[in-house]
Amino acid sequence: MTELYRYIKERTMKSIRGRIFLNVMLFFSLALAATPAQAADPLLSWNDGPTKQAIVKFVGDVTREGGPNFVAEPERIATFDNDGTLWAEQPMYFQLAFALDRVKALAPQHPEWKDKEPFASLLKGDLKSALAGGEPAIFQIVMATHAGMTTAEFEQIVKDWIATAKHPKTKRLYTEMVYQPMLELLTYLRANGFKTFIVSGGGIEFMRPWTEKVYGIPPEQVVGSSIKTNFELRDGKPVLVRLPELNFIDDKADKPVGINQHIGRRPILAFGNSDGDLQMLQWTAAGSGMRFMGIVHHTDADREWAYDRTSHIGTLDKALDEANAKGWIVVDMKKDWKRIYLFEQ
Amino acid sequence: MTELYRYIKERTMKSIRGRIFLNVMLFFSLALAATPAQAADPLLSWNDGPTKQAIVKFVGDVTREGGPNFVAEPERIATFDNDGTLWAEQPMYFQLAFALDRVKALAPQHPEWKDKEPFASLLKGDLKSALAGGEPAIFQIVMATHAGMTTAEFEQIVKDWIATAKHPKTKRLYTEMVYQPMLELLTYLRANGFKTFIVSGGGIEFMRPWTEKVYGIPPEQVVGSSIKTNFELRDGKPVLVRLPELNFIDDKADKPVGINQHIGRRPILAFGNSDGDLQMLQWTAAGSGMRFMGIVHHTDADREWAYDRTSHIGTLDKALDEANAKGWIVVDMKKDWKRIYLFEQ
Repeated sequence: MTELYRYIKERTMKSIRGRIFLNVMLFFSLALAATPAQAADPLLSWNDGPTKQAIVKFVGDVTREGGPNFVAEPERIATFDNDGTLWAEQPMYFQLAFALDRVKALAPQHPEWKDKEPFASLLKGDLKSALAGGEPAIFQIVMATHAGMTTAEFEQIVKDWIATAKHPKTKRLYTEMVYQPMLELLTYLRANGFKTFIVSGGGIEFMRPWTEKVYGIPPEQVVGSSIKTNFELRDGKPVLVRLPELNFIDDKADKPVGINQHIGRRPILAFGNSDGDLQMLQWTAAGSGMRFMGIVHHTDADREWAYDRTSHIGTLDKALDEANAKGWIVVDMKKDWKRIYLFEQ
Repeated sequence: MTELYRYIKERTMKSIRGRIFLNVMLFFSLALAATPAQAADPLLSWNDGPTKQAIVKFVGDVTREGGPNFVAEPERIATFDNDGTLWAEQPMYFQLAFALDRVKALAPQHPEWKDKEPFASLLKGDLKSALAGGEPAIFQIVMATHAGMTTAEFEQIVKDWIATAKHPKTKRLYTEMVYQPMLELLTYLRANGFKTFIVSGGGIEFMRPWTEKVYGIPPEQVVGSSIKTNFELRDGKPVLVRLPELNFIDDKADKPVGINQHIGRRPILAFGNSDGDLQMLQWTAAGSGMRFMGIVHHTDADREWAYDRTSHIGTLDKALDEANAKGWIVVDMKKDWKRIYLFEQ
């Protein structure tokens, strides 16, 4: 490399074209080398205060070469829950809204559903009765809408839905209901050499079709729940068929299992919003060196929703106690976030 | 950014320290920007010929912006089998050698093994009798040596073994028995914006402790077979305990399943060496646009080993037929590789 460097340096110093080349190279190296501290505030949608300071301090500490808390770039793993942490989850998980829309779309092909629960109630618009069947009912709805097609077909179904379906309250696309402060945090972390992952109880193949565009997180950095798939040759063409059989539920004590299985390294930063994220936060906290454990606390009934200990969706109870006991960072949505969604200008 | 660039450029042009800074920046930008075409031959250990030409042409085509075969960087996914593709696999899979060494190391804690197959035969050095029990015998050996400890403990066991164990024929460390031409290929692909993954039937946690150092492939880009793990709090400290229960066998028709589960994108380049890789190659080939399917054919009995259709290890039969029928690239180790290991200077 040294010889190559000398050769190109000599060449570039001699000619105008070479100097342009050198300048272009310099520009790119500066673009890479420039740290957010030199640039405009990368966390514009965060109000100034202890929460924002804690984030900036952590990132500064682990990226300061030679400092006592320095973490080498490959070890800068950051994991984020999705529902309630990166995008909203009320009045129901968005993936459940997807499943309900799919039941309606598929109903003409399933005349038997009008006499069969949980579908009959769903088709009458009676969600409460439909879900009265508990987990078996949800399992039936998920499998009827998520299995039986190839992975490519399912991807297209998700893409079509996510591009058109609107949230019942805001009338916005679901992908507009992502938290702007968290988007800024993801970008800020990546600009500081972090690799950002989603670790969600949501379906891995429900998220992947849009996470790269919306969060800048590529499919290979999405960890989630899954059903089994089977490799088949159809007319000589290989396909993966989605089977009505659970493979992995990426929630609670299985979040660290999913992290280990998929990433194989312990995060140094993790963000969640519910008790389903507690073990991920504990797993993150248990590593050596400096760690950041964050919880998004939904405290803003006006701009978003306010819920925690007694909510059925995104229950935040034990994790809130542990956060308080251990000094983890609890984001007070109402106080800490200047704005929540990009559309509320 | 432009202003910052101008400021630093002016500053750097003025002072000696600045010029040193500029040179350092230039060095790094060249290191990043230098394409293999400008640099010395990146595939030095490959003999000139159609195989090497096919690789260089493929990489040139998919990276040529504006060209008909251009592939955007995030889609440049390359997957490699490990045993027999990146490192040797004779006279037995290296992970089996690890398991046998572990049986010996653990024998004092298991006095019952001297009367219990397959352990009794193994401890007498009679591998053939030990493996006569077929898959159940192998399962017992794997579980006795790979389960029952935490993931952190297992990682340390693997690190210790890989740093010291020697191959019976070459007397070299196993990590020295990696194919130099394939290391160069991995580096060449990464320099051209590819993300390189291992997709191996080997144990994911057996590979991860050393793949980053040896192949430049980080843990999160290793896909492999696994056993189940369980999250536990031990004295308040979270651990993942390895259970004697299979989770996933990443082989044959389950290689595309593993790729989809873990990466969520179809590779545009895949390399294998046996029938266990056939479905991964088919899955790769079935995508749209330009594709590269490669097979390492073990043809060199002098420098390595020669085996294919009738070998018990790394059987290459159906995949060789399909490669020939479909024009996939078959690497003739004897003819195409100038050298095999770095230690054979």
